[in-house]
Parts: sequence; structure tokens; C-alpha cells
Amino acid sequence: MKNALNRVIPGKVNGEPVVPYKGVGKYRPEGQKHAPKISTVTDYPADGDKRVPTLREALMRSGLRDGMTISTHHHFRNGDYLANMVFDIAGELGIKGLRWFPSASFPCHEHLIKYLRDGTIHHIEGSMNGPLGKFVSEGGMKGTGVLRSHGGRYQAIQDGEVKIDIAVIGAPTADPFGNANGLYGNSACGLLGFALADSQYADKVIVVTDNMVDFPCIPWQIQGNYVDYTVEIEKLGDPEKIISGTTRITRSPDRLLLAERTARFCDAAGILRDGFSFQSGAGGTSLAVGEYFRKFMKEKGIKARFARGGSNKYLVSMLEEGLVDYILDGQTFDLEGVRSMAENQNHVWTSPFTSYNHHGKGNFAGMVDVVVLGATEIDINFNANVVTHSDGYLLHGLGGWQNCLFSKTVILPVPLFRDRIPVIKDAVTTICGPGELIDVVVTERGIAVNPARQDLIDAVKGAGLPLKTIEELKAEAEKICGIPQKPQLDVDVVAVIKWVDGTVMDAVHRVRP
Amino acid sequence: MKNALNRVIPGKVNGEPVVPYKGVGKYRPEGQKHAPKISTVTDYPADGDKRVPTLREALMRSGLRDGMTISTHHHFRNGDYLANMVFDIAGELGIKGLRWFPSASFPCHEHLIKYLRDGTIHHIEGSMNGPLGKFVSEGGMKGTGVLRSHGGRYQAIQDGEVKIDIAVIGAPTADPFGNANGLYGNSACGLLGFALADSQYADKVIVVTDNMVDFPCIPWQIQGNYVDYTVEIEKLGDPEKIISGTTRITRSPDRLLLAERTARFCDAAGILRDGFSFQSGAGGTSLAVGEYFRKFMKEKGIKARFARGGSNKYLVSMLEEGLVDYILDGQTFDLEGVRSMAENQNHVWTSPFTSYNHHGKGNFAGMVDVVVLGATEIDINFNANVVTHSDGYLLHGLGGWQNCLFSKTVILPVPLFRDRIPVIKDAVTTICGPGELIDVVVTERGIAVNPARQDLIDAVKGAGLPLKTIEELKAEAEKICGIPQKPQLDVDVVAVIKWVDGTVMDAVHRVRP
Repeated sequence: MKNALNRVIPGKVNGEPVVPYKGVGKYRPEGQKHAPKISTVTDYPADGDKRVPTLREALMRSGLRDGMTISTHHHFRNGDYLANMVFDIAGELGIKGLRWFPSASFPCHEHLIKYLRDGTIHHIEGSMNGPLGKFVSEGGMKGTGVLRSHGGRYQAIQDGEVKIDIAVIGAPTADPFGNANGLYGNSACGLLGFALADSQYADKVIVVTDNMVDFPCIPWQIQGNYVDYTVEIEKLGDPEKIISGTTRITRSPDRLLLAERTARFCDAAGILRDGFSFQSGAGGTSLAVGEYFRKFMKEKGIKARFARGGSNKYLVSMLEEGLVDYILDGQTFDLEGVRSMAENQNHVWTSPFTSYNHHGKGNFAGMVDVVVLGATEIDINFNANVVTHSDGYLLHGLGGWQNCLFSKTVILPVPLFRDRIPVIKDAVTTICGPGELIDVVVTERGIAVNPARQDLIDAVKGAGLPLKTIEELKAEAEKICGIPQKPQLDVDVVAVIKWVDGTVMDAVHRVRP
Repeated sequence: MKNALNRVIPGKVNGEPVVPYKGVGKYRPEGQKHAPKISTVTDYPADGDKRVPTLREALMRSGLRDGMTISTHHHFRNGDYLANMVFDIAGELGIKGLRWFPSASFPCHEHLIKYLRDGTIHHIEGSMNGPLGKFVSEGGMKGTGVLRSHGGRYQAIQDGEVKIDIAVIGAPTADPFGNANGLYGNSACGLLGFALADSQYADKVIVVTDNMVDFPCIPWQIQGNYVDYTVEIEKLGDPEKIISGTTRITRSPDRLLLAERTARFCDAAGILRDGFSFQSGAGGTSLAVGEYFRKFMKEKGIKARFARGGSNKYLVSMLEEGLVDYILDGQTFDLEGVRSMAENQNHVWTSPFTSYNHHGKGNFAGMVDVVVLGATEIDINFNANVVTHSDGYLLHGLGGWQNCLFSKTVILPVPLFRDRIPVIKDAVTTICGPGELIDVVVTERGIAVNPARQDLIDAVKGAGLPLKTIEELKAEAEKICGIPQKPQLDVDVVAVIKWVDGTVMDAVHRVRP
């Protein structure tokens, strides 16, 4: 089956029919949101104490059995212990055929490969960073992986596309009723927005904490009224890997050049005006863009109305200096982010519902003036890849990347080539975002503006920026590196990429190792 | 049809079959929560600006037509202008047969009687305070009124028992996207919890504000992602009536005696221990109970973990003195309450979902150690009435009263008689709460403890409190006032009282004026 981007996709994924990608804004959802069963307080302890002694008991009371969908969140990033514990228990109990539905997975979840091998886990729906992606790429998983953006995951749960049987929510602080937040405790991660949909829509919800406090746990980022059981454990994760002590701006002169050029472009295009808004990630280049924004804003005497996080110490200092009115934060990347979120009412915790859900009555993504994102590959129609490398390996997740493409201006600062492989090519290995939403590609050898954005081209004219066409950039890279070989990929599909509306945008193919 | 309290109730209300009350915790809900239609951001402005020029246009774009259900909230209390505006527009447009579904109505809504007369409004589902209650009592309304507690209203919306076509949410502060709060602006009312369910479940949601701010409106007590249209108007209400400049403790020696006795009872019963929790209303006697709690707590050197609001300056000062760790607030009654909620993260805004929803996975009501409530009548089985007077007139709403009955100890301080009519009688005019949930009746002539609470009777023995049976209290009142005559009531039912689980507890009959 071919979709609107002319990509070949399977008609069914894990036995379920899928809807092919139809174009930006072209697919109209029908029907009603997923409707969870009506509960009654009669089934819950009158004094609000929902504690059970162990995670194992909570899972058993939740009716854990073959074929269920188990969700976890990724706020503990590469420091997470909890997802591994859940499947250790499932493995011990001899449960088979589970669907693991994390908001993302990390190298620390390599531990779960044995459960993918022995059939405890049938397949993963959720972004895969590192070893699990490699394992899936090489055809090791029984089912087909499904990758969704943060907003797409909320949409899939809300729309009943994925029905969660048991949500396991790791909570840095919680009370026995199940109110929970990510702000305090040894496993503090900032917020718990990635678990919001799970709490609202899952059949059974378990909150697991290593910092149980008396009711009420304030603030309640997760509301205990959605929670079935609470569990105390020793340690949810490794604090040093949950949150970095410090984030660091790139020192690479090449990447600093990309960052400066990106900021200059924004300035020339008139984006850096009083009251503007921006989002830039936690990578070294993105952080550097933020620092150039700071410099330009100070020079111009302007401030931003809001910045979307991933927050970090740089963004926090801009908030505290009064350069941004609000941080609307989706995840905190360092200790300063956690501190600020706990202390400062203008450092606001958001969720994939507020920020990104494509099947809501609007979301925040479209209101952001400019976002700065990464990409592994970009084609001459500005379609971009963010999950696979040029060798075909699935090694990254989608995160909020697809959702951010709805911002008013989308800029991808990328090197012209990496390890002598050009980034801009005729066709990308996997399309994750349609070119019509990608406006500017900034490289060390020139800036290509999407011809659809003539307004931007006009705006920056005469600003001394090295504008080129994307074809020119591609040709320059090929002159240096040669024309890259296409990776040798099987016809077998190991994973699919969903668009923000639940349609299938592309397929990821098996790699011959 | 008779229910488990032996009350005669109609089998159908407004043409819909009803479930009779079955006893505390006896009714088990079935099925799924109400599932709103899936939206798509494609149908909303990409820049998040959902403003339309007038409320009239917002209502028309929302498809206002005959027979619809229109909801409003009562955070503006007796200062509300908005509900009247909505039905003025409906009246001008010639719309008929609307169901008005307010979270409560007040004397300021007397204006709507003309629309009840001319058929613009078919009937009201929501508590009625004052003139509308009188109008309904005398048989003026075409349909049958349905009274629900705050928690019961959330339950009814969540369960799909009441489907809201258009929710009109008055917001003291909002942004063009629809994020809204009650904390700031000329119409500040504190919070917007009573409109939460409406925002989540209504088909169309309109946010109306007299204080439009740039995105983002922080905090967002109502999330713009649920909102269809936003409207700016001059004035939502009369600030002096929305919130009182000051709340005042009773100076009546009789009521002070009731308050002191209530607090003494709590002390003797061991309820006032370190880390306890309490809820007491905003009436003069309740406020005085709080002040006695403060005195006792200081003497004993203890503090409360949380107090449930209605907040007011007295409760706020206890929070600020460190006598309570948290206020979990459902509505703010004075300016100090609003100030504190805006400033202090430990003054927490709650909602009927967190506090009271009987069809959730637990709620807060059962966790409160003691609540102090009012009643118009109490029978010898401790069943109590809070909506009608002894003359049969429906003059008050249920508020959170039914929900609070789930607290660990429920105390009703009441005078033995009012205007020479005894409060304790063989049978109350309308049962709003079952006696099995009511523990203590405190009067100026003695305290009656429900025999089902032998633990309380034992605990306070020897404390010098004037314990009597409820029959003794009734006899004392009758000795002074005589046996009260039963009111002359029609068989016609003008309204029904729902229990927290959606079953029908009692019927309110037409009064012959």
C-alpha cells in the first residue's frame, strides 16, 4: 500500500488494519474518544490508602495476563529501573505476548531484549533509543514496532487506538491515594506529563514511588482519582542518569557556527521580536541557539512571552533574568530545571495533551514562533528523517519532533555531512516529517529555505546570510563525499512511523547486519 | 415507586427512567464513561486564537437550538451576569425547550423566571437558591428540577447521564486559546473547579472573560485544549457579590455555643490530634467552629495536615500561621481566599472530580476526619434535609453536602428549633442524606450521637458533654414548640434529589402557596 508521500507501507500492523498517511491536515478522525469503565469509590479503600505491599502484587491484582498492553513512561530516561522490574515480574509469572507501550525506551532497557526473545513481550510501541532499536532493526522482535510522537501517543490513547490494560507510573513523590509528582525525592525528574494519558485512560493504574508522603502529595501532576494501587519501592532509578547534574552547550566550532547562523536567520527574518516564542531542544547545538537568542534579545531589549522546554539551566536563567515570561515545559533535563519548576509558578508543567495532541481542540504547537530541531537526513523536498541512520538502523525516537513541525517556523540546523555521509539526499531512509512543514535547513555551507516560504526568503534578503537552494547544498556535499550508497534493506517491515494523526507515514525495514 | 429509604419517587423524570436509591454503597454503576467526539486541530485556528466577537456569535457557532442542554457554573455566586446573558440571547433567538444545567443558581438568576414561563428554558437541573426554588416549588416550571451534589454533578456528566451540548464558562482571566483561571481580574472568584467536568465532556465549550490576557494564561485551571470559542465581554458580574470583601464569624451567643460545643466534642472524641483534617463551611457557625479548632490546636500544640475549603480569611490565616499544612479548596469565599490561592502553592485548587466524584477511583471526601455541616431538618434516624424548609419550599441547594457525609465523622450543629419550629422531627420533608452517614447532632440543649457510632459515645464519655438521645432532643423541642404540623403538599413532584451515585433519593412536592 502506498501513502500520500508515495511510501510503501503494510496494510496491517500486528494484525490490525492501518490508515495510510493522507497529507497534512487531510485525515479526519471519526467517532468518540476512548471511554474507560465507570468506577465506583465503593471498590476503593474509604480512607484513601491504596497501598499494596509489592509491585508484583499490584500487577497481579490488576489482572496481569497474556496479551495485555502495559504502559510505562520515560521521565527517568536512561536511569529507569521500573520498566525492567515490571517485565522481570511478568517473566517470572510466565506471562507471554505482552505489548509494551512506553512513552520511550532507552539503552537501560537493553535488559528487556531477553523478554522480546522469549516471547514475554510480543512487541514494543514507543520510541526506541539505542540497543532495542538495533535489536528491532535486525529483525529480533516478534511483532512490529510502532513509533509515535509524544502527541501521537496521547492521540492514540485518547482515541482508543491503543487500549492500555495496566499503566505503571513511576512517581518520584506520591501519597497512598496515588497523587503524584516528579518534583521531589531521590528520583526527581521534574514532571510526569508523559504518563498523563495513561492515568486517564488505562484500565488499571499503578503508581510506584520511592518517596511516599502523607496525603496530600502537592502538587498532583498525576491525580490519585485515576489510580488503582500504590506501591512503595526502594529505588525507581539511578538519579545521576534520571537527570543530568548539568547540561552543556556544544564547544564544537562547527556546531557553534550552525547555532549562530540559526539565530541570525531568526533575527533577520523578524522572528526575534518582543513577545515572541521559541522551542529548542536539549542537544548541544540547540542549547547554543538558545544562548544566541539570549544575546540578541539583550541587544535588542526584547523578551519572549514563552519558551517551550525541555528545560535546562540556560532556559531557567533566562526565565529568572526576565528574558522569558514563562517556560512551558514538557520535560526537565537538569537539576536546575527541576528546582525552577518546583519553585517558580511561571515555570509551568505541560503535557502531550496541552502541547501536542493533534486530536484536541487545538494545541500549543502551532502557537510557537520558531522551533529548532535536529534530523538524521533531509531530502530535496525538505522531508526529514529523525529515527533511522543512513545505514537503515533505527536508533532514535520521534519525541516531540513531529509535533513541533506545526510551529510557525521550523529550522533544522544540520552539518552538511556526518562521517563523510551527506545529510541532504534525494530520498531519506525513513520519512518522519513532511517537507511542507519544514522551512529552513541551516548548514555550515549555506542556508536553504523551503521555496514554499517565499515570505522568509524575502524577509532575510540583504541580511548577508549565505542562502542556497537545497539542491545546491546536496551537490556541495556530494562533491566532497561522493554520492552515498543506499543501505541494503530487506523488504520485511520491522517498525512503522505514525504521523501525529495516527496514520502511517513510513515503514522501517529490516537491516542485514 | 419506593426506594430503599421508603420514599415515594417517580419512575420517570422529564421522560427518562430513573434508578431508585438503593442504600449507601449499594448501587453499582455499569458501562463506560461518556465519550466526547474526537476533535482535530485542523478545525481550530492554527495560531490558537479562538476569539469570536460576541457571546451571541459563539452560541450560534456552537449550534444553539431547541432542546439543547446549556451548562454554566456558579463561581460568581450571586454576582453572576453571564447565565442571564446566555438565556437573554436564547430568548431573542426564539430558542425553546432548553435544559439549563448550572452547578448552582442564585437569587440573581430570578431574571430567568420569564424564560421558564415562556418555555425558553424547559427545566433546571442544578441547585436552586431562593427565588427560582420558590418558583419551582409552586409548580411554575414546565419540567421537573433535578438537584445534585457537586460530586453528583461531576458523576452525572462523566457517566453520560447528562450530556452537555454547550458549556458556557465564565473566566475571570483567560487567553484567546481558552486557558482560564479564576485568580485574577475584576471578577476574580478563586478557582473554576465547578466548570471542570463541563470543559472535559461538553460537546462545545465557550470561555467568556472580562480579562483577556496574552497566551499563556497561567495557571490554566481550565485547559484551552477543551475549548471551542473564546469571547471578551465588558463585565462577567458584580465583583462585590462574586466574592465578599470579608467573611464574618457569627456573634450570636446561641450559635457560638453550638460552635464551641462542636469543637469540644471533636476534642473529647480524639479527633483533634496532630495531622488531622477537617472541613467546615462558610456559614457563621461553621466559621466559629474553625476558630475554636484554632484555639484548641494552639493549646495542644498540634497542626492539621489539611483543611478542606470553602476558604476564607480565617482558614487562610491558619495556613499562614502554620496550623494547617494545606488548604484543599473547592471555592473561595472572600478576597483573602483568592489572594492566598494565587500566592501560596499550599493553597490548592481542587475540583468535584478530585474531592467528590463517587464514580472515580476513590475521592477525597472519605479521607477527611471531621466535617461540620448544616441542615434544615433531621429525623430520629439521623436522616437530614438541607434543601427544603419545613413549609415544603425548596430554597437551598445540595452543594457538597451529600459528598461530605462520607467523611469519617459528620457533625451537624443545629438549633433545636427555628422560628418555634423544631428541627428534629419524626420525618423530614425531604431526605438529602441517609442517617447512617450522620454521626452527631449538636444542639444548644444537648448532643445526640448516632447509636451506630458507639465508638464516639465511648470516646466522649466523662468529658462533661451533655449527651442525649435524638428522641430526647425531639421531645424537648416539642415540649417548647408543640408538635409541628406537616406542610400541605401536592402529590405533584416539582423536583427530585439525586444521591451521589445518580440514584433518586427523594422527591420535592408542589407547595400550595
